[in-house]
Amino acid sequence: MTDVAKHLRLTHAGALKMIDAAVAKAGEIGVDMCISVVDDGGNLLAFVRMDGGKLLSIDSSFNKALTGVSGRVPSGGVPGDVEFKLAHATSGKLTNLKAGLPIYVEGIVIGGIGVGSGTGEQDLEVAKAGIAAIGAGYEP
Amino acid sequence: MTDVAKHLRLTHAGALKMIDAAVAKAGEIGVDMCISVVDDGGNLLAFVRMDGGKLLSIDSSFNKALTGVSGRVPSGGVPGDVEFKLAHATSGKLTNLKAGLPIYVEGIVIGGIGVGSGTGEQDLEVAKAGIAAIGAGYEP
Amino acid sequence: MTDVAKHLRLTHAGALKMIDAAVAKAGEIGVDMCISVVDDGGNLLAFVRMDGGKLLSIDSSFNKALTGVSGRVPSGGVPGDVEFKLAHATSGKLTNLKAGLPIYVEGIVIGGIGVGSGTGEQDLEVAKAGIAAIGAGYEP
Amino acid sequence: MTDVAKHLRLTHAGALKMIDAAVAKAGEIGVDMCISVVDDGGNLLAFVRMDGGKLLSIDSSFNKALTGVSGRVPSGGVPGDVEFKLAHATSGKLTNLKAGLPIYVEGIVIGGIGVGSGTGEQDLEVAKAGIAAIGAGYEP
Repeated sequence: MTDVAKHLRLTHAGALKMIDAAVAKAGEIGVDMCISVVDDGGNLLAFVRMDGGKLLSIDSSFNKALTGVSGRVPSGGVPGDVEFKLAHATSGKLTNLKAGLPIYVEGIVIGGIGVGSGTGEQDLEVAKAGIAAIGAGYEP
Repeated sequence: MTDVAKHLRLTHAGALKMIDAAVAKAGEIGVDMCISVVDDGGNLLAFVRMDGGKLLSIDSSFNKALTGVSGRVPSGGVPGDVEFKLAHATSGKLTNLKAGLPIYVEGIVIGGIGVGSGTGEQDLEVAKAGIAAIGAGYEP
Repeated sequence: MTDVAKHLRLTHAGALKMIDAAVAKAGEIGVDMCISVVDDGGNLLAFVRMDGGKLLSIDSSFNKALTGVSGRVPSGGVPGDVEFKLAHATSGKLTNLKAGLPIYVEGIVIGGIGVGSGTGEQDLEVAKAGIAAIGAGYEP
Repeated sequence: MTDVAKHLRLTHAGALKMIDAAVAKAGEIGVDMCISVVDDGGNLLAFVRMDGGKLLSIDSSFNKALTGVSGRVPSGGVPGDVEFKLAHATSGKLTNLKAGLPIYVEGIVIGGIGVGSGTGEQDLEVAKAGIAAIGAGYEP
């Protein structure tokens, strides 16, 4: 039946587990973050803005998550000559900021996580902690 | 592993098969239509506007498909006292027009189809033809 | 010091506690929900879409929370003759659907919670459970 | 009769033929794509997102098609010093990404095709295959 294919989906229990682990990691680092988890359709599954999370990181963390799930690779690797072309053509959704990761389980992308408010490296560390919490990866 | 659940997804081959069958049914009826097929995240998978399809049915067919996949029941059954409240609260995405159907396979909603440009009944007949084309249903 | 006044704010720990309690109540009722918690600036603090939560309730739950925090009373009480005037004038943000509650602590509104995917009564019960979890109220 | 002029328009049969040929070419290349076909009013005529097509290419493929039909030349040739001015002034609709082509028949632009998810060159090859399928061109 080629009209329909087997797939996997991220549950809300899984998404909240990711949020909790990301919050814990942000606490360790000492930088409050905004953390967005989306499903594989780019729709918000879970979110938290920590006390010191930046207001505008609500949006950027979401767009990072979208970018991760859409491109199926960590955000930040788009070549400089097309980076802003893509940002414009997607109303800013496709971002070349770091810390937007696809969530891979059994080789399938089931969602994305995006983190913002710290440096790119801090954000990325928190995003990775979220993914690790459910035993997933950010590569196939 | 409760973080991740088994799921099914509609392929583009399936979506195009739905489009073709819906176009054929619209031809039989003699009313050109706009036909939108979305995945279970409400993202467009396939679309066609037939020659006589109405310009504004591009949007309404999409919102019908969204409504079907979101509510998991055929569109049009929302009670009159909340219909416009829901339309406003969702920026018009939740529509109480007929002919937005969820696509059920093995009891799971894998997408939605929305059809517009005819009467509600004509639109619905075309939407049903799309669903029948892949052996799916619009009820669990 | 009349230029600046003492205030209270909802922490992310508090917001996540509300989310957890709301999820638990939704589980008891047996209807999966979308749950949005916003701060007193109407900005998202925490969110979860449960597995069976409706896609379009992402938006409506957020607008309910906005409506609760803005009006400082539970959503749903706007008279019919102004309901849609207000919806239009706020781009749909002010909704007269039930289950958007202000979060009161010591007589001060510190945020709002909005819940959607069930009936108005089910949504409201879940929103109330969220508020009870932090010992807050939805009235002054 | 100078008030009204003869015109040509792309039929839905033609648009679907373009989609099918583009899908076939994408299959040959081995990269799943999003493919948008618009009429000369920039309104969507036909669309498909292949199984591996990127979520954010739904938007970018549409904007590419718009850019092709608007400028009447292949997208990607705008000089660097005005590229983002144009992107801003059109809310991102005018994109300088490759693979947005006008559809020329008898020297008249009857629509546009936009393709995304691969490299610019891959996208362009797929767009050209779509145009070739109806014996049209992307130049006058």
